[in-house]
Amino acid sequence: MIRVGIVGGTGYTGGELLRLLGGRGDVEIAVVTSRELQGAAVAGRFPQLRGYVELRFAGPDDAALKRCDVVFFATPHGVAMHHVGALLEAGVRVIDLSADFRLRDMALWERWYKTRHASPHLAAEAVYGLPETQRKAIAGARLVAAPGCYPTAIQLGLLPMLEAGLADTGRLIADAKSGLSGAGRRAVEDYLLCEAADSVKAYGLDGHRHHPEICQQLTSIIAAGDSPAPQTAKAPQAPQTPQAAPPVTLTFVPHLVPMPRGILATLYAPIKDGMETDAAALQALYEARYAAEPFVRVLPPGELPATRHVKGSNICEVAVAYAPHSRTAVALSAEDNLVKGAAGQAVQCMNIMFGLAETAGLQHIALLP
Amino acid sequence: MIRVGIVGGTGYTGGELLRLLGGRGDVEIAVVTSRELQGAAVAGRFPQLRGYVELRFAGPDDAALKRCDVVFFATPHGVAMHHVGALLEAGVRVIDLSADFRLRDMALWERWYKTRHASPHLAAEAVYGLPETQRKAIAGARLVAAPGCYPTAIQLGLLPMLEAGLADTGRLIADAKSGLSGAGRRAVEDYLLCEAADSVKAYGLDGHRHHPEICQQLTSIIAAGDSPAPQTAKAPQAPQTPQAAPPVTLTFVPHLVPMPRGILATLYAPIKDGMETDAAALQALYEARYAAEPFVRVLPPGELPATRHVKGSNICEVAVAYAPHSRTAVALSAEDNLVKGAAGQAVQCMNIMFGLAETAGLQHIALLP
Amino acid sequence: MIRVGIVGGTGYTGGELLRLLGGRGDVEIAVVTSRELQGAAVAGRFPQLRGYVELRFAGPDDAALKRCDVVFFATPHGVAMHHVGALLEAGVRVIDLSADFRLRDMALWERWYKTRHASPHLAAEAVYGLPETQRKAIAGARLVAAPGCYPTAIQLGLLPMLEAGLADTGRLIADAKSGLSGAGRRAVEDYLLCEAADSVKAYGLDGHRHHPEICQQLTSIIAAGDSPAPQTAKAPQAPQTPQAAPPVTLTFVPHLVPMPRGILATLYAPIKDGMETDAAALQALYEARYAAEPFVRVLPPGELPATRHVKGSNICEVAVAYAPHSRTAVALSAEDNLVKGAAGQAVQCMNIMFGLAETAGLQHIALLP
Amino acid sequence: MIRVGIVGGTGYTGGELLRLLGGRGDVEIAVVTSRELQGAAVAGRFPQLRGYVELRFAGPDDAALKRCDVVFFATPHGVAMHHVGALLEAGVRVIDLSADFRLRDMALWERWYKTRHASPHLAAEAVYGLPETQRKAIAGARLVAAPGCYPTAIQLGLLPMLEAGLADTGRLIADAKSGLSGAGRRAVEDYLLCEAADSVKAYGLDGHRHHPEICQQLTSIIAAGDSPAPQTAKAPQAPQTPQAAPPVTLTFVPHLVPMPRGILATLYAPIKDGMETDAAALQALYEARYAAEPFVRVLPPGELPATRHVKGSNICEVAVAYAPHSRTAVALSAEDNLVKGAAGQAVQCMNIMFGLAETAGLQHIALLP
Repeated sequence: MIRVGIVGGTGYTGGELLRLLGGRGDVEIAVVTSRELQGAAVAGRFPQLRGYVELRFAGPDDAALKRCDVVFFATPHGVAMHHVGALLEAGVRVIDLSADFRLRDMALWERWYKTRHASPHLAAEAVYGLPETQRKAIAGARLVAAPGCYPTAIQLGLLPMLEAGLADTGRLIADAKSGLSGAGRRAVEDYLLCEAADSVKAYGLDGHRHHPEICQQLTSIIAAGDSPAPQTAKAPQAPQTPQAAPPVTLTFVPHLVPMPRGILATLYAPIKDGMETDAAALQALYEARYAAEPFVRVLPPGELPATRHVKGSNICEVAVAYAPHSRTAVALSAEDNLVKGAAGQAVQCMNIMFGLAETAGLQHIALLP
Repeated sequence: MIRVGIVGGTGYTGGELLRLLGGRGDVEIAVVTSRELQGAAVAGRFPQLRGYVELRFAGPDDAALKRCDVVFFATPHGVAMHHVGALLEAGVRVIDLSADFRLRDMALWERWYKTRHASPHLAAEAVYGLPETQRKAIAGARLVAAPGCYPTAIQLGLLPMLEAGLADTGRLIADAKSGLSGAGRRAVEDYLLCEAADSVKAYGLDGHRHHPEICQQLTSIIAAGDSPAPQTAKAPQAPQTPQAAPPVTLTFVPHLVPMPRGILATLYAPIKDGMETDAAALQALYEARYAAEPFVRVLPPGELPATRHVKGSNICEVAVAYAPHSRTAVALSAEDNLVKGAAGQAVQCMNIMFGLAETAGLQHIALLP
Repeated sequence: MIRVGIVGGTGYTGGELLRLLGGRGDVEIAVVTSRELQGAAVAGRFPQLRGYVELRFAGPDDAALKRCDVVFFATPHGVAMHHVGALLEAGVRVIDLSADFRLRDMALWERWYKTRHASPHLAAEAVYGLPETQRKAIAGARLVAAPGCYPTAIQLGLLPMLEAGLADTGRLIADAKSGLSGAGRRAVEDYLLCEAADSVKAYGLDGHRHHPEICQQLTSIIAAGDSPAPQTAKAPQAPQTPQAAPPVTLTFVPHLVPMPRGILATLYAPIKDGMETDAAALQALYEARYAAEPFVRVLPPGELPATRHVKGSNICEVAVAYAPHSRTAVALSAEDNLVKGAAGQAVQCMNIMFGLAETAGLQHIALLP
Repeated sequence: MIRVGIVGGTGYTGGELLRLLGGRGDVEIAVVTSRELQGAAVAGRFPQLRGYVELRFAGPDDAALKRCDVVFFATPHGVAMHHVGALLEAGVRVIDLSADFRLRDMALWERWYKTRHASPHLAAEAVYGLPETQRKAIAGARLVAAPGCYPTAIQLGLLPMLEAGLADTGRLIADAKSGLSGAGRRAVEDYLLCEAADSVKAYGLDGHRHHPEICQQLTSIIAAGDSPAPQTAKAPQAPQTPQAAPPVTLTFVPHLVPMPRGILATLYAPIKDGMETDAAALQALYEARYAAEPFVRVLPPGELPATRHVKGSNICEVAVAYAPHSRTAVALSAEDNLVKGAAGQAVQCMNIMFGLAETAGLQHIALLP
């Protein structure tokens, strides 16, 4: 029985961790904290959990956290970096779903998050929690920085091409479409049903916080692509500190679409000058790369991902097409931003860290319709 | 291992049966039939099942059906009545999710469904598959007629009051709001997103096919209310053939609301002349009646059901309020029409019929948001 | 050219007033006030008005208000009652879309709104702004209290039956379904797309502020039904202070449905003992009553209202059916809560007050799909 | 008074033509045809028109068409090409909203539409109905081929950059997001609310029928950009037959988003090698190009288009941003696909053809929320 704590469990990500962990026989949810709702019933905040989770919210520094085997941080950025150190010292492993430990470059982090990082040494230690590239490193990690929704969808969509060195990485474009839950459970006027329904819009054209994380990881993938495949690498963290990877230039435009869950990333990758490919070769490349991945579903030729195919599940659907007239590969990836793009991925990391079946508690079939 | 067959598994109810049964270790889905898609991959029709269900659709009379332990019919009305007899003779138990065996009165059935009933003797044998009132009868049944979405929501909402003899059953009103999946997976113009989004409307004011079923069952509940409680009844089918129950007069108005799943029933029950009640007494009555029911969630005072609280789960949420100035109890019930209102309820019946834990494979927490 | 002022024009009702008035050649929008956004461009708040409305928000007590011919209050309750007096003294006519002047009974008002009424004498003077019953009084009014969305839908749905004395007014039920814009443009977590989409729920079972207004007006209609028809009444306000009307008992349950606009009211009216009616008689009654009303559309037999039929238009669609087994008439009314249920109705009142064509600027055809 | 006929008026485009034309004082809708609904009331098909349009559908070849001043074809492709010739001979002007006359290259047309073109000489004569580039030609045209939703959004989004020769036209990308009404009013399972709600997906990666039209027109714009501006061109059709325009290579990926109306096009245009630009220069370019256009709204810097800003209106919102690290301009355009993307644009053409104010009957403010 693994004792689990959740810090900051009042938002959508926290609720999703509770949904995924709440029904497991091999996990005990020992403590869920909330600064604002301390003392209140967890099921009062999450009516879907009534009858499944009987806990009350504990305070943010509850001593029970140190008695856990693993603690998830489902907090806004800038919180975990203050608390993780003490937990690690107490022997607790940590999976942070916030942005605190995702970037290697502390100056870059501080520029985007406009605050001083409290634990740069832990940021250096943290393992990036994308099992499809970091499985071995995750297994041995004390601290995992689980990637967010856009970075996961974009990396999984481009991964095979980047590892194979096919794409012109100076001209990548990621056009991503996200449901509203990515904006969190916050009373913000723009996210009211009346403001967001029946509409599509882009946002963040002047810069999105996920952009540097995506570029860091795409660069890391390219560097790894030049060395042995990451699954068999002896020094699994090496790919995370590339020395001489070619620079990645990514134009990233996120959009809001009127639905609660789901991200679809449409990824435009020009094929490098001098390289040849076609639809069949790309299809074979993707199928081979993901053949052993339990949560990446490469669609057969002609089928295209849809967010509804993965709603509530931990699966990322991927397809790839080729436009010969423009020599551009178009990859598509669809995920549930709260599952494979957040809580499910974190639980997948937990399973790996504790030597459990990687799919334990994550085999929900998508809810359709 | 229970061998299961599904007849007519191409619609939403069929897909939901596959979702609920597909991941179970104690159930083997042996055959899924479809007249139109015979030979096609099941996962081609249900993209969410890709990787979970590897079957192809069999023909409608596939011999494998007779080798099953139980066969579910997820067909339109008028199909099961032709095939159930042969399966029962072969020793297969049957759970029919269609309307073929729900009514006792064959003349009434033939008037509403405008066709001759092919197996009136089986309609007489069939047990009405609402576990909350027929648990013992279901356990011993060969043929279960699982109730549909409106009847389930309305019965569970009114049940405690009717059993207690509180409501003036000559003046009941059920105002029900349903998502679009209740209309089935059929290419009908009225159910296009462009026709159904951003709108609410009533329908069926000149008569809805579920109306006689609801009245039959409410009458049955009232009759049972005058005798020992149904859970302890020695002759469990007796409540289904009431002798002298007072007539039920129900005004039933169904509505379509713009969402895929969920039913909310708002039930207006005037309190009988001479009876006294209040909010606290009604609350206590509902809590007591459903205390042992695993899939009925009576909300605490002041909380109200919402379909999102139960989306994807087998739970029916119930609340009751009292308007003293009009001496009217207002009961509210919310369910997922495809789960507790269809496939989940059928699986719950299967669990009871085969002596399994009643909640086996049905403990999905609702997907929220 | 009528000079118009709008006080509190930052919400959905304010935006709708601007949409309806902004394109008219016979109206000049002279001033729009906002306490919070003073100085900001109106089109910054309402992107749909960019290019149509060039104004900036003025302060709440801007002197320009007194130079208007008419001022609309689109404020929360408790604001207009402090400012209307001075405007009336300055010769400005006022149409209040808030609740400040809708109730006759000041004690009742103060109980529901939990504050002392600042201008009870004006509440006594105010004319209730439902043209279908108060046209003549509106024409001569200095101060009009425009009714809100639920009261309008419910009154127009029941009006012909109540005037005809057909309904048992001790047992009326109004089950109303509203889109989210009725809750206003406020950053409230419950109204986020992620909280409100894909769900239906009831609310306000312990009492809704529109309830006393509805009961007051239904009582007034009944009283008027015993006297000459309101259109021809010499003392048009008399119907508003009934002496001996039978008491109205209404069970009113509002619901939220996942869409921005629209209200559908399903109204259950038992026919009085001793009265006889049928579907054809009810149809004829409704058609006759509304034959001359430009904004009430009685549907032909068999057709049912839908909120999409009236989205963006000032029309209220009405239909009536009859359930003989329960001797209950079921009336249905659909309106756009922001138009006929708010801004459109207020503009209709303005047209009447200023002797314009009643339909001026209000002939938008509904936007469908 | 202009006498108008509509052929094939039962779909969303037909309904929108009726909404836009139905309330005008200077237009008489003389005849609306439908092969399937001949004899039925138009308002039975379009409930929003009840009370506004009293016509019944005529047969497809009704003689009244020849007595019209202008006939709109709102038919599927392959219909107008058989009927337009006779109408033109009778002196009727024609605006075709289908694809029959949009392409210059008949072989290309026949390849995409898989049928022989019946009137290639008329295709050669037809004027492409985008007023922003073809205003003068439209004024004198007998036959206008109104562009569809994707081509309009993409052309208006890229136009200023292409005319200025800024974009590398060999590497253009159009990622477009459309509401469901673009798929028409057809009973197709994929467009059911239950299939399309809560989901985003791409489609048509193997080729979309609008692709050749878009490329033809972008090429035409580039060619015109090298010559005097189209507004002042003496031979207005010349830009449509470019001799030596550089080839356009466009990667076009359309997507479906869960809403009835609206298109957002996100357009990625790499800046040509050797050219310099920045955000301010692009902003100035767009503002200057569209300063005199009544239906193109260039947003101020920092504001981004949303389909809700233009729902029901004839406006196309445009914004442009610049990503210096990738030297890529990102232009965004939002329109209502049924208005500026179909019926509104056709009416705008009619206004131009008949010398009316170009904005007549098209000044609807968007319906928000």
